[in-house]
Amino acid sequence: MPHDTTPLPAGSMIGIVGGGQLGRMLSLAASRLGMRIHIFCPDANSPAFEVTPHKTVAAYDNEVALAAFADAVDVITYEFENVPAATAEFLAARKPLRPDANALAISQDRLAEKSFLAGKNIPVAGYRTVETPADLEAAIAALGLPAILKTTRLGYDGKGQRVLRAPEDAAAAFAALEPKPLVLEAFVPFDKEISVVVARNASGKVRSFDAAENFHTNHILHTSTVPADIPPEIEKHAAMLAKVIVVALDYVGVLGVEFFVVLGDERPSLIVNEIAPRVHNSGHWTEAVCLTDQFEQHIRAVLSWPLGDPARMADVMMQNLIGDEIFIVPGGIDGNTQLHLYGKTEARPGRKMGHVNIIRRPL
Amino acid sequence: MPHDTTPLPAGSMIGIVGGGQLGRMLSLAASRLGMRIHIFCPDANSPAFEVTPHKTVAAYDNEVALAAFADAVDVITYEFENVPAATAEFLAARKPLRPDANALAISQDRLAEKSFLAGKNIPVAGYRTVETPADLEAAIAALGLPAILKTTRLGYDGKGQRVLRAPEDAAAAFAALEPKPLVLEAFVPFDKEISVVVARNASGKVRSFDAAENFHTNHILHTSTVPADIPPEIEKHAAMLAKVIVVALDYVGVLGVEFFVVLGDERPSLIVNEIAPRVHNSGHWTEAVCLTDQFEQHIRAVLSWPLGDPARMADVMMQNLIGDEIFIVPGGIDGNTQLHLYGKTEARPGRKMGHVNIIRRPL
Repeated sequence: MPHDTTPLPAGSMIGIVGGGQLGRMLSLAASRLGMRIHIFCPDANSPAFEVTPHKTVAAYDNEVALAAFADAVDVITYEFENVPAATAEFLAARKPLRPDANALAISQDRLAEKSFLAGKNIPVAGYRTVETPADLEAAIAALGLPAILKTTRLGYDGKGQRVLRAPEDAAAAFAALEPKPLVLEAFVPFDKEISVVVARNASGKVRSFDAAENFHTNHILHTSTVPADIPPEIEKHAAMLAKVIVVALDYVGVLGVEFFVVLGDERPSLIVNEIAPRVHNSGHWTEAVCLTDQFEQHIRAVLSWPLGDPARMADVMMQNLIGDEIFIVPGGIDGNTQLHLYGKTEARPGRKMGHVNIIRRPL
Repeated sequence: MPHDTTPLPAGSMIGIVGGGQLGRMLSLAASRLGMRIHIFCPDANSPAFEVTPHKTVAAYDNEVALAAFADAVDVITYEFENVPAATAEFLAARKPLRPDANALAISQDRLAEKSFLAGKNIPVAGYRTVETPADLEAAIAALGLPAILKTTRLGYDGKGQRVLRAPEDAAAAFAALEPKPLVLEAFVPFDKEISVVVARNASGKVRSFDAAENFHTNHILHTSTVPADIPPEIEKHAAMLAKVIVVALDYVGVLGVEFFVVLGDERPSLIVNEIAPRVHNSGHWTEAVCLTDQFEQHIRAVLSWPLGDPARMADVMMQNLIGDEIFIVPGGIDGNTQLHLYGKTEARPGRKMGHVNIIRRPL
């Protein structure tokens, strides 16, 4: 069924499932466009509840609350890919859900995602499904070691995975990771990690932001630097692969694609690590230096509006503020920086509390 | 009494008096910094009520509501200069009011403002107080014609003023304008209008944004273009005069200063037209091309935070969307533009509904 390309008018009510910092920043972007926002989240202390008067605090399986939420809004989107499938289907039956339930189903299951990508000839790391210890032994034989054993669902920031360096690591890792099935992924000896945030609207128009080069600390994104230090043809190729993905999904919204870059002896290559059907932490730099940031771009797509201009005005580095790092502000922030705080009340270790965008130089 | 320079922590509650688009954009900026916002406004349909769950709908003389509002917040600011003096004093007795009641008192009265500016040797157009027809006759004799007869209070967007071109215009204009006293201002044969948005924080640090060149249509700001097409020494002089004003007021927050530029035969000169103790329509371009925009800069000052970096990344023109002009969006907006809509439900003629920032070229 083709998407409805009628633009929603100013004053429309956008429903957002999830109340974290991504929902909060989506809400602020929608407000800049004159929209109203209704946040649905089970956690009464959600940061996004502070930026709109319209909210529902209820569990994702509370159908009475979901139905009332759907009634109250004109269109629905979400800030995280782990929206339960039943929730997505329940909502999609009542109001347009953008991105759609299919994008959620694929991206919330590592096996479905890899199978989808491989089916579109998108390069991914070698992988095998693992349901039993015997499967794991066979997978190790096929893919070699080191390799990474992962749950298929609900992994993020390095959670739900174990690195296998030797055959004797296998049994403990298999026992520790739940639920089954698992997936064993070949280790990619990559030189860099980059990501591309791409947008597609209801009319099929695709625009991507410049690629970011990402550095992780303790499996959590630490910095994203733009431009990425990669050959121009690799950046162009990454944008092309991102476009292939959103076209194949008939996707509406912003999607993050993480790539491994293998520089190689002769020519560099790209492998897709994972996709996220939402605004992405590695796209927060767009707030500082793009006329249209990733949050507005997502909202524009969700509204069936023309996409905005993703052109970049300066070189920039985004740095996450994790846990106690929030306390360096406001005293410790120098010039050339733009600060974003999420309004979280408790600075737990490993928790993303905010970020800074540090400008390097105007273009 | 020196200002309290202790920075307010993330999660603080900022009270904003006034619920229009300026209050809305201040609220969005404060949310980006992790703050919470409470809007006080008599009009239940105020655009700013859509961007926070904390609100008071009450008259500005409702002391019970004002007291509860003051109790609920950590610091108070406002979006318009016509906050009644009694309201400002009532609030300031309970919580820090930034900018203070003195800045309001001076800027909401044309005579007080001109007297203040002239007293600091800031160039202003010649003026005379007019309480009677005889005063007006004497003022015309002193200042010549054409001249502009204005109310001293509550004028904006060309309201509350009449141009006198000939002596026979005087009687009707005097009769029409209320309340008395009025002020007659000499006509300044200016070549351009520019404005400077300047910020001063509690520690006395002053930063100004680049000057904007302003064009009006039907007495309403139509466009602001940056950089202004003026000699560099005039831009520097305008920033210096703006700094003199905020230092003289011991001001905390963002202040807009409108200037007439008279190019002259030998060297150009500046005359201050008026000041506004708040974020200013001619500063909306900062949202698109500055790492810190005028709204965040105001919030930073109000929080006793260090000021942000006002550096500009590109040339830009801001254009207001007045009344029906809102309906050109989203279809009619090209690339290189950033759209802002205020969420107003009714597009009345002359009403500011939104604006676009149009990028000319990166620096």
